[in-house]
Amino acid sequence: MAKRLGAHTVECETKPRVLASAGVAGKRESKGPLGSRFDRVFDDTTMHEDSWEKAESRLLLSAAEIALQKAGLHASDVQAVFSGDLQSQCTASVFGLRSLGIPYAGIFGACSSMAEGLLLAALALESGACSITMAATASHFCTAERQFRHPLEYGGQRTPTAQWTVTGAGAAILANEADPDAPYIDKVQLGTMVDLGVTDAGNMGAAMAPAAKKTIADFLRDTNTTPQDYDLILTGDLGAVGSELLHELMAREEGIDLSKNHRDCGLLIFDRKTQDVHAGGSGCGCSASVLCCDMIRCLREGILNNILFVATGALMSATSFKQGETIPGIAHAVLLKRREERAE
Amino acid sequence: MAKRLGAHTVECETKPRVLASAGVAGKRESKGPLGSRFDRVFDDTTMHEDSWEKAESRLLLSAAEIALQKAGLHASDVQAVFSGDLQSQCTASVFGLRSLGIPYAGIFGACSSMAEGLLLAALALESGACSITMAATASHFCTAERQFRHPLEYGGQRTPTAQWTVTGAGAAILANEADPDAPYIDKVQLGTMVDLGVTDAGNMGAAMAPAAKKTIADFLRDTNTTPQDYDLILTGDLGAVGSELLHELMAREEGIDLSKNHRDCGLLIFDRKTQDVHAGGSGCGCSASVLCCDMIRCLREGILNNILFVATGALMSATSFKQGETIPGIAHAVLLKRREERAE
Repeated sequence: MAKRLGAHTVECETKPRVLASAGVAGKRESKGPLGSRFDRVFDDTTMHEDSWEKAESRLLLSAAEIALQKAGLHASDVQAVFSGDLQSQCTASVFGLRSLGIPYAGIFGACSSMAEGLLLAALALESGACSITMAATASHFCTAERQFRHPLEYGGQRTPTAQWTVTGAGAAILANEADPDAPYIDKVQLGTMVDLGVTDAGNMGAAMAPAAKKTIADFLRDTNTTPQDYDLILTGDLGAVGSELLHELMAREEGIDLSKNHRDCGLLIFDRKTQDVHAGGSGCGCSASVLCCDMIRCLREGILNNILFVATGALMSATSFKQGETIPGIAHAVLLKRREERAE
Repeated sequence: MAKRLGAHTVECETKPRVLASAGVAGKRESKGPLGSRFDRVFDDTTMHEDSWEKAESRLLLSAAEIALQKAGLHASDVQAVFSGDLQSQCTASVFGLRSLGIPYAGIFGACSSMAEGLLLAALALESGACSITMAATASHFCTAERQFRHPLEYGGQRTPTAQWTVTGAGAAILANEADPDAPYIDKVQLGTMVDLGVTDAGNMGAAMAPAAKKTIADFLRDTNTTPQDYDLILTGDLGAVGSELLHELMAREEGIDLSKNHRDCGLLIFDRKTQDVHAGGSGCGCSASVLCCDMIRCLREGILNNILFVATGALMSATSFKQGETIPGIAHAVLLKRREERAE
């Protein structure tokens, strides 16, 4: 049984292991600093599908299939998949996963989906309800752009605070048994919405930073730890603006210095000097592909001993935005560790 | 620890109890057969908000607040709320629940959301991660109509197979402790998408019936039971067309007669003879309000001993539909029982 630590954090007793994970990405992402890490790269933005929406489903399916293959499992071995995405009614997840026949729990966490999925997939194992689960998510620049902002053909100017939605997907398979060398989930925290009144849909980093700050501060408090206890605190897609705000908020309100071991997936996936992505990458597929490709590998190879993964989401819709609503942020935390500590 | 029964079903060990539940509804619903059962009825479709979307959030918040009040709890007592809705990016849930400050797991199950929420809220208790959780969902005729179909002003004709989206919401609070007389969740099943190729968005019943059939058949097989073992098999919103198809599929493919103790929330909430709702009610709020108001009461008062609640969802979006995609259905099952059986 999992147990609660403090007000918000949960410690997993069974230490759900990440049996395998996979990340796939598009052309622009393949030219970024992590280009060589992705399990598969699609050079054609349409992935040979006849719409971008179908292409995003294809990305998600590809990540799920590669993860299954790496784990040596069939889809029928997986007892639940937790998946959602940015498209309305989770279209990418539904149509991407339909053919696999895995029991499906649709989730919605916007860009926090990878953390929400991992958290719920871990709790499904902790509960005893499942022995193998999957978390998966995707995003696609073109589907997000035309759904949330403008038709691509319009060629709208982007503000410097805007982020570039990653075309990519990630999938991770969790299990309680087998492979003691696999990284595992030690603790999780379901986030609470934080809304400081940001209304600029071209500045998601500012909308999400206060939620990231709350979740990380709550996590450190609940576990009686400091940032130095983690090799890496990895946020989802705050980008340059949100990351700076997170450091500022954390220093001012909590007296905590995050500058040393915090990194953001939105800043890792692109090279802002050579790639025209403004404040950095964003989208469900940003943190999903970075975590599932590169970071899980770092844990597996012992390059990192632990990662506090905090994916953030901006819980807005095109409708809420047009109706003048502010943008609530949310951040879910998952503490991943290198491998199960065994008694000597 | 929960344990698996057969291939798909999960038995809850801690028997999560429904501490309290509440359902609210709009004007049309208040004039239906269950009108007197709702905890609150809104006579104004706008709920005094300046958009229908905000009205739907208001409905959801109202159901959540009444459920909290009935349970004698504050929002801060609840450790996780599982909520989603039909609006893109779960707008009703996000903005409805924002003010409560409860850790939020966004879900997407279309009209199956109440069952998905109950299932995940139950597993969060089973895992030990939480001791009090909430499941909530809502729908609103006007938000659904203009999002999925036509502007209301257009006055589009509806086909006879079409259903009427319920303006309503439901919320249920689950806990492991206290109140041994409360109904409890005995078993759950996470559904799998079933897509037989229906493309008619004006016939959701046909799109969802095969998923309901699969989930119910799997549940009966896994638990080695027959329909007669249940006082009521309650589907979400198959309506008249989908219910008939469910009976047909079940008889032909499984040799099982569902006609005696199956009812559908979409047929219970409206009187089709006097209310112009075509094939019946639909929407997340349909099964949520019927279950949370009337059915939980029947269990609590001993009118029913058990209910196999199977909410169904049509996993489509306005985009997937316009791109010619078929409509995958899904159905999640939750077996609710009267009260914990105690050793004599």
